[in-house]
Amino acid sequence: MTHPFLDLAPYTPAQFAAVERRLARLLSTEHDVVIMQGEALLPLEGCIRGAAGPGTTALNVITGPYGQTFGGWLRDCGATVVDLAVPYHTAVAPEQVAQALAAHPEIDFVSLVHAEAATGNTNPVAEIGEVVRAHGALMMLDAVASVAAEPLLPDAWGVDLCVVGPQKAMGGPAGVSAAVVSERAWQRLAANPRAPRRSYLSLLDWKERWIDGGRAALLHAPAQLEMLALEACVDRIEQDGLETVMGRHAAAAAATRAGAVALGGGLEPFVPDVRAAAPVATTLRVPADADAASLVARALAADPALPLAAGGGALAGEMIRINHYGPEAARGAVLAGLTALGEALAESGATVDVDGAREAVERSWEG
Amino acid sequence: MTHPFLDLAPYTPAQFAAVERRLARLLSTEHDVVIMQGEALLPLEGCIRGAAGPGTTALNVITGPYGQTFGGWLRDCGATVVDLAVPYHTAVAPEQVAQALAAHPEIDFVSLVHAEAATGNTNPVAEIGEVVRAHGALMMLDAVASVAAEPLLPDAWGVDLCVVGPQKAMGGPAGVSAAVVSERAWQRLAANPRAPRRSYLSLLDWKERWIDGGRAALLHAPAQLEMLALEACVDRIEQDGLETVMGRHAAAAAATRAGAVALGGGLEPFVPDVRAAAPVATTLRVPADADAASLVARALAADPALPLAAGGGALAGEMIRINHYGPEAARGAVLAGLTALGEALAESGATVDVDGAREAVERSWEG
Amino acid sequence: MTHPFLDLAPYTPAQFAAVERRLARLLSTEHDVVIMQGEALLPLEGCIRGAAGPGTTALNVITGPYGQTFGGWLRDCGATVVDLAVPYHTAVAPEQVAQALAAHPEIDFVSLVHAEAATGNTNPVAEIGEVVRAHGALMMLDAVASVAAEPLLPDAWGVDLCVVGPQKAMGGPAGVSAAVVSERAWQRLAANPRAPRRSYLSLLDWKERWIDGGRAALLHAPAQLEMLALEACVDRIEQDGLETVMGRHAAAAAATRAGAVALGGGLEPFVPDVRAAAPVATTLRVPADADAASLVARALAADPALPLAAGGGALAGEMIRINHYGPEAARGAVLAGLTALGEALAESGATVDVDGAREAVERSWEG
Amino acid sequence: MTHPFLDLAPYTPAQFAAVERRLARLLSTEHDVVIMQGEALLPLEGCIRGAAGPGTTALNVITGPYGQTFGGWLRDCGATVVDLAVPYHTAVAPEQVAQALAAHPEIDFVSLVHAEAATGNTNPVAEIGEVVRAHGALMMLDAVASVAAEPLLPDAWGVDLCVVGPQKAMGGPAGVSAAVVSERAWQRLAANPRAPRRSYLSLLDWKERWIDGGRAALLHAPAQLEMLALEACVDRIEQDGLETVMGRHAAAAAATRAGAVALGGGLEPFVPDVRAAAPVATTLRVPADADAASLVARALAADPALPLAAGGGALAGEMIRINHYGPEAARGAVLAGLTALGEALAESGATVDVDGAREAVERSWEG
Repeated sequence: MTHPFLDLAPYTPAQFAAVERRLARLLSTEHDVVIMQGEALLPLEGCIRGAAGPGTTALNVITGPYGQTFGGWLRDCGATVVDLAVPYHTAVAPEQVAQALAAHPEIDFVSLVHAEAATGNTNPVAEIGEVVRAHGALMMLDAVASVAAEPLLPDAWGVDLCVVGPQKAMGGPAGVSAAVVSERAWQRLAANPRAPRRSYLSLLDWKERWIDGGRAALLHAPAQLEMLALEACVDRIEQDGLETVMGRHAAAAAATRAGAVALGGGLEPFVPDVRAAAPVATTLRVPADADAASLVARALAADPALPLAAGGGALAGEMIRINHYGPEAARGAVLAGLTALGEALAESGATVDVDGAREAVERSWEG
Repeated sequence: MTHPFLDLAPYTPAQFAAVERRLARLLSTEHDVVIMQGEALLPLEGCIRGAAGPGTTALNVITGPYGQTFGGWLRDCGATVVDLAVPYHTAVAPEQVAQALAAHPEIDFVSLVHAEAATGNTNPVAEIGEVVRAHGALMMLDAVASVAAEPLLPDAWGVDLCVVGPQKAMGGPAGVSAAVVSERAWQRLAANPRAPRRSYLSLLDWKERWIDGGRAALLHAPAQLEMLALEACVDRIEQDGLETVMGRHAAAAAATRAGAVALGGGLEPFVPDVRAAAPVATTLRVPADADAASLVARALAADPALPLAAGGGALAGEMIRINHYGPEAARGAVLAGLTALGEALAESGATVDVDGAREAVERSWEG
Repeated sequence: MTHPFLDLAPYTPAQFAAVERRLARLLSTEHDVVIMQGEALLPLEGCIRGAAGPGTTALNVITGPYGQTFGGWLRDCGATVVDLAVPYHTAVAPEQVAQALAAHPEIDFVSLVHAEAATGNTNPVAEIGEVVRAHGALMMLDAVASVAAEPLLPDAWGVDLCVVGPQKAMGGPAGVSAAVVSERAWQRLAANPRAPRRSYLSLLDWKERWIDGGRAALLHAPAQLEMLALEACVDRIEQDGLETVMGRHAAAAAATRAGAVALGGGLEPFVPDVRAAAPVATTLRVPADADAASLVARALAADPALPLAAGGGALAGEMIRINHYGPEAARGAVLAGLTALGEALAESGATVDVDGAREAVERSWEG
Repeated sequence: MTHPFLDLAPYTPAQFAAVERRLARLLSTEHDVVIMQGEALLPLEGCIRGAAGPGTTALNVITGPYGQTFGGWLRDCGATVVDLAVPYHTAVAPEQVAQALAAHPEIDFVSLVHAEAATGNTNPVAEIGEVVRAHGALMMLDAVASVAAEPLLPDAWGVDLCVVGPQKAMGGPAGVSAAVVSERAWQRLAANPRAPRRSYLSLLDWKERWIDGGRAALLHAPAQLEMLALEACVDRIEQDGLETVMGRHAAAAAATRAGAVALGGGLEPFVPDVRAAAPVATTLRVPADADAASLVARALAADPALPLAAGGGALAGEMIRINHYGPEAARGAVLAGLTALGEALAESGATVDVDGAREAVERSWEG
């Protein structure tokens, strides 16, 4: 026998618009914020299909798996794509972007991922943005894994299309997401005959019918529960302060890195340069004779809720990822993940110092 | 990894007072409604300990297990108790109450259970109330199993203390409940030196600090989620109409009874007189050679969510209860319960007509 | 000060697959059910863009506003479109479909809306399906406004692509929705070079990566709260029985129609033929000298939660819609809507019989 | 129009027992933990009425308003009460307790509040417990405002009856609460003929019917939503680590105190000795010419959600309380509260240094 719990009144356009305004404030942006009713892949795809067409030449910076997805979409739209791929354990340097733009002056669109949750690196977007702005291309940024984990300032950095999702450092739901769209980006989309229109993918629909219509009527019935959960997570961030939330993520990343180094057993930071390491997740390279996937499986057998994962695809054997975002940007979660990893290494015959790792975490946290 | 869902703003006195008003409207009462932050046993105990003391002579009508609990509390308070017990398969007749009152003119308190979920009977409270009112005693009614399942009119019937809980026919939460308190009852409580005061059991605290204080401050932090769930269930009842909700319960009771008779296999209504059968649950007597508890266990093995139970205590062997309240006052639930019961009977060797039972349910529902 | 309520463990692929199976059972289908993480417009668009291309000739049956949206998508895909439009107050007849197919033997795709919530009509899909199957075209059905309100049997009727959403008669969330896809439809999509792939719009992605991958990994993080709400509404339908839920909608439609006729004041059923009237909503034509939008505004001023709306677009002046789906397929909601409408008519000078209307509702409901 | 969200399966005895076990682990206790279905006043009253009777001599330590409530209950039970009252801005010293026990060797029960949310002080329970244990009296502790804010070790400290509630530092619901009961306390209750039995107030009922019955059947239907919220808050504490949660409260208290001192304007810590200041809330004395209640009203006018309150009763004019528990044991909440307070002081003519206060908070937090 079940009993109903709560009935919900319909979600109003005014509530929806208020959440957009609060997201804009969190992102210190004056641009329009458009909340779309789907996972962050929806606005990411909407941005690229909206901005790109046969006349576009795009610089697609690839620092992880999402860059490859973006390249596919760009080519699918008929754009000419210049790929700038860097090894997954490094950030892209502003100079590399400058060189690519100099070599292809016709480039009018740049796509970039801010932080890569899958590989644990983060890119210097402020500096890259300066280079792109000087060149004049439209700049799109996937900030799903950076928002609320590290500084994100689309206006100051000259980002024209910036996509965020609440499900990582914001600690919110995955079913709704948002794009920040500059005036310049709106013009590019409006001028693109192939931009999605009257489509679930369409940002222009939201511009023409929602924003220009005075935010009076939504395009379709909203995902009400996800919107309420988004409100709840914005409440929490506003209350704690965005600086505090980012500070928690920075502290978790520093402590995880320090703990992993102290743990030993052949583990090494997958991203050697600490400035390129993302606050959202820490990636570790396992010794040559170990298998990352089996170590993770062993650790998760003890507690399947631990924030550990093996690398995806080709990295499954060699890389381990410790997530520390949202509720897991916390000392307890970091300690639990490293301890379990240390025990799995010990079981597999490695010499590790679990106590030392825990002390290093504590020291880093206090510091 | 878990993610938080909803944050809730504090529950305000104004919200609390509004729910009390809406409950009063549902019960067509002008008396005070006091919501207490506990299961319905809390206001039941609060009413009896509030009203009774060494000078009290109470007529305690026992038509099921709760009557025995009430008798215990009354004696515990020092009251002289006249028990009027009737077999659990019948209602008490107003004449029986009248005789008891005539035999004990000193009776100044009457406790009565309206409907008994445990035994499936219901009592003619309107008629009994008339008798009690003529005598002048204070009347307390346990209406937990009748509210929203059958007419309940405390003011019209002269009930001074009426306790309701949302967890049965209202389809709501079990963690909060309410008492309707007449002006006469407040006077009795205020005059009782042994009535609980400054106590979780105290109705007088709510009178003096909550009601007389203008409903400005609650006595303690409320069970917010249970209050929200109570609001949600009142929303539903107001929307469907109380008549409709009671109609569903009456239909479910009639259909269950018709279906059980058509099922055969030796089952008989535990409450022979249909006017004494409660809309909240239908009880059935199993044949002498069968065991109710094992039949129910067999039926629940197939689907543990079925609204079936064996009788409690001494009735465990001989009585089966089919609940049909709240979301289960529905054709589907009635059919599922009777079908499973029929199959359990068939497995145990009885001759049953499951198809006939289902047809009888459908006919009764349409009729 | 707010307090967090519930933390939720991640939604698993197994839970997701279980909901798909339960939806399939509700729809009596053996075909694949694909749940998409967006409002029903997402799978509708995914079906049309997946199935149609420059080589397609589509018969687009227009019985309401959604038919026009579908025509736009079809043309956008490069398909040749044969529009079969009927007045919004009638159903399309199977003979009309047969004639269109005979006139255009090259038609290989038919799009049809089952019930139109906006105009209150419903189409005889079983008979139309027979005609389309004989012709051999792929048939797509928008069943968002019919599912759980009236019989819907995609397999028996030969529907290849059938889209449902939980937010109307199912009484569930709007943020997730589903498509039933026949084997024949999968082949059509797979053979379509322009079908969306690696896209939020793509049904093929779900086929290749989710279904063919053994339903082991979702394509992206799901809208967990909407999925839980979908589970809750499927629970309720399974418990009450789909027949009962549909019966409530049929009863609400019959009672609303009877009540509106009895109300008088110049109101007339917008859909004259009762067989073409949808159980999801009843539409009414206002007298020539009245304005539908102002009548509705007047009625909603008293209670903005009433299930009343004026017609959209050109129908804003002449048509009123009474919704009676989900929790509002209930006697109380029907009575409240008609009463408020009657009072608004009376205030505007019309002669109406509100009591007669209420009696007609009650009689219809009992009958 | 509203839509139902979630249906809930019944809460099982096994789930209930699991929460009790997890609370026991959080409290490092081997004693029984009894969850009662009401606000913390319910187990507090249950403990005192269970343990005390006409033969009892109780030492009631009064360091805030709850001590007065406890004294009332003790006298109500017929106990002889020795009150040991200390000014509300100090802790009680173990020596004071020792003297009282020496002066009244017949004392066999001691009641004490650990931390006082209302006045902002906390008592040295470990040391007091040693004194009480040496004397042999049964010791009861109200730990509602200390649990999860500061160390709480009932077993190590010799506490026999320890009451906790989730609504303060645990960040959970107010509608359920718990008592830790030592074997010695169970014996005392069982031997007390006046201990509540068959009552909502009865701990013995839970012992005899729930614990001794193998935790197979609950005493009544539980407050399911409050239990789920309690589970969620225990999840969070387990995940972050109890040490971390307590660290947040200590940091918030230190930062608030530092900030208030830096703010100036005549504010002074109400509890002069920092060792006696509770981590749950910081209390401040306003200058003689100011009125605490109007300052708070002024600050709340700007944002009613700020965690500020004026003192209760006689302290309304002179004391201000800044709460920093649960979600508000956070830098952002502390800053917001102090800033608003500073602005209210400035408006009323005081000279304050809001920037200095904010810097002091930041420095304290980093330190």
